Amino acid sequence: MRSLPDQEAEVSRSVLDMSMSLDGYIADPDDFLGGEDGERLHKWASQASETTKAFEEEWKAAGAVVSGRRTAELMDHWGGSHGGLPIFVPSHRPPGPAARWGYPLVTYVNDGIESAMRQAKAAAGDRDVQVRGAYTGQRAIEAGVLDEVQLHVVPVLLGRGRRLFDVLSAETELETIRVIDTPEATHLRYRISTTAG
Amino acid sequence: MRSLPDQEAEVSRSVLDMSMSLDGYIADPDDFLGGEDGERLHKWASQASETTKAFEEEWKAAGAVVSGRRTAELMDHWGGSHGGLPIFVPSHRPPGPAARWGYPLVTYVNDGIESAMRQAKAAAGDRDVQVRGAYTGQRAIEAGVLDEVQLHVVPVLLGRGRRLFDVLSAETELETIRVIDTPEATHLRYRISTTAG
Repeated sequence: MRSLPDQEAEVSRSVLDMSMSLDGYIADPDDFLGGEDGERLHKWASQASETTKAFEEEWKAAGAVVSGRRTAELMDHWGGSHGGLPIFVPSHRPPGPAARWGYPLVTYVNDGIESAMRQAKAAAGDRDVQVRGAYTGQRAIEAGVLDEVQLHVVPVLLGRGRRLFDVLSAETELETIRVIDTPEATHLRYRISTTAG
Repeated sequence: MRSLPDQEAEVSRSVLDMSMSLDGYIADPDDFLGGEDGERLHKWASQASETTKAFEEEWKAAGAVVSGRRTAELMDHWGGSHGGLPIFVPSHRPPGPAARWGYPLVTYVNDGIESAMRQAKAAAGDRDVQVRGAYTGQRAIEAGVLDEVQLHVVPVLLGRGRRLFDVLSAETELETIRVIDTPEATHLRYRISTTAG
């Protein structure tokens, strides 16, 4: 098991972080993260372990979040900030009332994912940008602005639901940069090196 | 990186062994293993490395093979034996002429996967049974006679093809029993613990 590396200084990386069953599912058929299947996918993160703690530290060390609108609204914009971090939501439609008036750390960006990522990286400084939502991850890959993918592969076959790679389908070469294996999940981190499709 | 464990004595395990892209593809859309995508999936196995050598030793240490008919015929029954090992092919149709007359180590089994596995385990003694073909793996899981799955996950997104988990779809709990990470592939080995669906 490789340990979590120190955050490299002065390099902001955009990272899509997803829990996935071995057969590729990230959510229920209804695209909902709750329920029994969602619990099986995210159980690893709620367990007290050294690895879970290290990932929590890593998430907290991020400097900004880019979130898909659907995810952001489903999570009520995490109450207005993502653990104190600014949230950038690429969307062509104007934000709802709460995001518009109640959440100063939430910014809706209507000129594309590149712009949202540029603003998030500027806000993050030398810290990472966490990307939330598979669709937004896909747009970021297509636009060439996603640097890494962190998958928590849970050893279970769900047999139904929404698959990450029905969304993330670009022909892409990846580089494995970290593997952490625990009984609860195999944590695979990839750098996106080329996008062919 | 965990090393390959010694074969436990006197325990024959049935193992489905597959190379898979990170997005879950095991073959071309035509279900063919050749071509550019097939090459990207299987490149890791043709490279001279300590890990490749260890896997070759592991494959050679098997005692019998259970292969789907399609895979067996596509590979011309590996010339009549799988590196000297007997091959059991579950199929309700009678074998073709070559398998019937030319290959004494090839046995067609027409009374189901359980019977094919029973015969293969008897032939293998205390050695493993290698399972070839995703459909046959699925039938074996359903029948409760598949013990382990060995996946070689290649860090590439193919974006098209035939997916292992369009076939292997039973609701199943797995136990991660080994993770070996190399730049070419992450080798994940699972024990099948329960089958719910």
